[in-house]
Amino acid sequence: MKKIYLDYAATTPVDPEVLEAMKPYFLEKYGNAGSLHSFGQEARDALEKARNVISKFIGARSSEIIFTGVGTEANNLAIKGIAFANKDKGKHIITSKIEHPAILEPCKWLEKQGFRVTYLPIDAEGLVRVKDVETAISDDTILVSIMFANNEIGTIQKIKEIGDICKKHKVYFHTDAVQAFGKIPIDVKKMNIDLLTASAHKIYGPKGVGMLYVDSKVKIEPILHGGGHETGLRSGTENIAGVVGFAKAVEMANKEMKSEMKRQQILRDKIISNLLQMPGTRLNGSKTERLPNNVNISFIGVEGEALLIRLNQEGLAVSTGSACSSKSLEPSHVLLALGLKPEEAHGSLRITLGKYTTDEDVDKLIEVLPKIIKSLRKISPF
Amino acid sequence: MKKIYLDYAATTPVDPEVLEAMKPYFLEKYGNAGSLHSFGQEARDALEKARNVISKFIGARSSEIIFTGVGTEANNLAIKGIAFANKDKGKHIITSKIEHPAILEPCKWLEKQGFRVTYLPIDAEGLVRVKDVETAISDDTILVSIMFANNEIGTIQKIKEIGDICKKHKVYFHTDAVQAFGKIPIDVKKMNIDLLTASAHKIYGPKGVGMLYVDSKVKIEPILHGGGHETGLRSGTENIAGVVGFAKAVEMANKEMKSEMKRQQILRDKIISNLLQMPGTRLNGSKTERLPNNVNISFIGVEGEALLIRLNQEGLAVSTGSACSSKSLEPSHVLLALGLKPEEAHGSLRITLGKYTTDEDVDKLIEVLPKIIKSLRKISPF
Repeated sequence: MKKIYLDYAATTPVDPEVLEAMKPYFLEKYGNAGSLHSFGQEARDALEKARNVISKFIGARSSEIIFTGVGTEANNLAIKGIAFANKDKGKHIITSKIEHPAILEPCKWLEKQGFRVTYLPIDAEGLVRVKDVETAISDDTILVSIMFANNEIGTIQKIKEIGDICKKHKVYFHTDAVQAFGKIPIDVKKMNIDLLTASAHKIYGPKGVGMLYVDSKVKIEPILHGGGHETGLRSGTENIAGVVGFAKAVEMANKEMKSEMKRQQILRDKIISNLLQMPGTRLNGSKTERLPNNVNISFIGVEGEALLIRLNQEGLAVSTGSACSSKSLEPSHVLLALGLKPEEAHGSLRITLGKYTTDEDVDKLIEVLPKIIKSLRKISPF
Repeated sequence: MKKIYLDYAATTPVDPEVLEAMKPYFLEKYGNAGSLHSFGQEARDALEKARNVISKFIGARSSEIIFTGVGTEANNLAIKGIAFANKDKGKHIITSKIEHPAILEPCKWLEKQGFRVTYLPIDAEGLVRVKDVETAISDDTILVSIMFANNEIGTIQKIKEIGDICKKHKVYFHTDAVQAFGKIPIDVKKMNIDLLTASAHKIYGPKGVGMLYVDSKVKIEPILHGGGHETGLRSGTENIAGVVGFAKAVEMANKEMKSEMKRQQILRDKIISNLLQMPGTRLNGSKTERLPNNVNISFIGVEGEALLIRLNQEGLAVSTGSACSSKSLEPSHVLLALGLKPEEAHGSLRITLGKYTTDEDVDKLIEVLPKIIKSLRKISPF
């Protein structure tokens, strides 16, 4: 049976071209970027070239890119690094209720350390209201962190507007762009973004590489201390093959983004319009402010996990929420913030497309899913 | 010109077999280990298999291995994670003056947070005196962190004796084994080690993967918060290809260690005895308690960096200290702790061997190095 992967928001396969670009840095150009000899120089050159490629992609300067070991680390660095470096100025942070756990959990941890965190609600489409951000800012606010696009419902926030408000009030603005980066255009300077998180494995790069863009004017402290790599902001031997792969993935995203946005959006809308024809369904998130690859639909009277397992038996890989919370039995905090009842949240499915998703894959989903829904509803206790 | 790499303590090439083992996890088995579908299950299986291989290699339980993004992160997790989780019990930490910056810097940072740190001296051979550890332990001591083997001078500490003392006094014992792991035998239970750091890229595995062994009885907090991966101790999407590579490297180390220890020790001793025949030389570190692949020699009246550059011109890659501090102009803190004068420390060279080092490589070094020393001494201002 052909397996069809429709969970690109969880992770993506590495593009074969990315792996080809990485290979020499495993086997031949294996130097430590901290070494003075030619092996070290070779590694340093690759590192700085990668940094340059990635910085240009978002309109940043090369020196403003800090490589980390995973997106979660970049988010922790942004939240805690800003908090500790600016606590003399204030101890208030503003974020939203629908952030990824890699933002929410560092915020909760900071609350235990004496910081105050405002968790903004969202509207019925999943959008943070821009005026809520401004209202929440007070004299002791040091950071606003609002994700670029949501990992479960794909809602794209009004990032430029939020950036403008943060600039006006002289508060740092961080955005977790793990889902948006490489999928929709981002310009950190035009959008007044001070810090931005991205991850290689969401855009056909390797797992184990993340990055934090940090505007040169930002006051921030490291969370990993040691040899002082990455201009002192992230100690640890640099993962050269990893960042080379990340840069190659960015180069390819740069080329493919425009056409893939269009192509995936058509497939996305085909899935949505087909599935919504079934009774007892609702689209979660915005129709317009939505990632081109994201579908999130609730099926009333159906257990999402049962649905996932049945689809998996048919060779279709989808998600009930984010990969990070899918092992948990808790209903999605994002869907609850949208106003869904727990039973509606439990009956939701996330389908995310990627550059290897074909028309045939989508046709198969549209054929199989309604049958499973009908079959499950027959045995549903609801 | 053939390039000869003699800087294996800085990093190692990835073994081609390791890369082969990793490849499927880039291209085909690319699932997120947090996903419920078959792609996720495949990733989870690989992750747990890797954890099992690595745990067995050091006599630990599988559930006691926490994967991180780099050795430095594992050290930060050990030091800060223990400090924060046990601060109610006490705020005193014992370490040594010759630790890697990935231990020293977290300790310095903790001092700013109100912790007290004792930095133990070493003897003339580079060994921490076991009785010094016991003397330093007081009622509020929560952690002793002494490296297994030093990255610059290769001195192997009396780990079991220190472990016994820590057990007796009910103080956690962490060892940074980044240099020792895979090179000499380690049994965490027999040696009474509670926490141990290792890194894949020092043993022919990929960069970007580290691990912390944490005995199940240890009370420790995470430093990266988020989705709760790695039993809550290290959030972030797991680097499956990376840990699979790490496990493969461990499997190979397990097979090759015994013979490589012998082989490299003979080459090491050949280099040492040859170079010490020159006047104005001294071996840094212990003759007996020494990693089988480490040579560290001071050449009086010679600038280490000039030596490194001249050797590099001849195709020989060596180090003046650790890769992490080699960009710095400060003399090595390890050599200063040994009692060397700054000018002696500046004239030191670290030569580290690996499994790809041949007799011919060593002969070339022994032929070239004395000529360069003589030439440099002629123009030396000393």
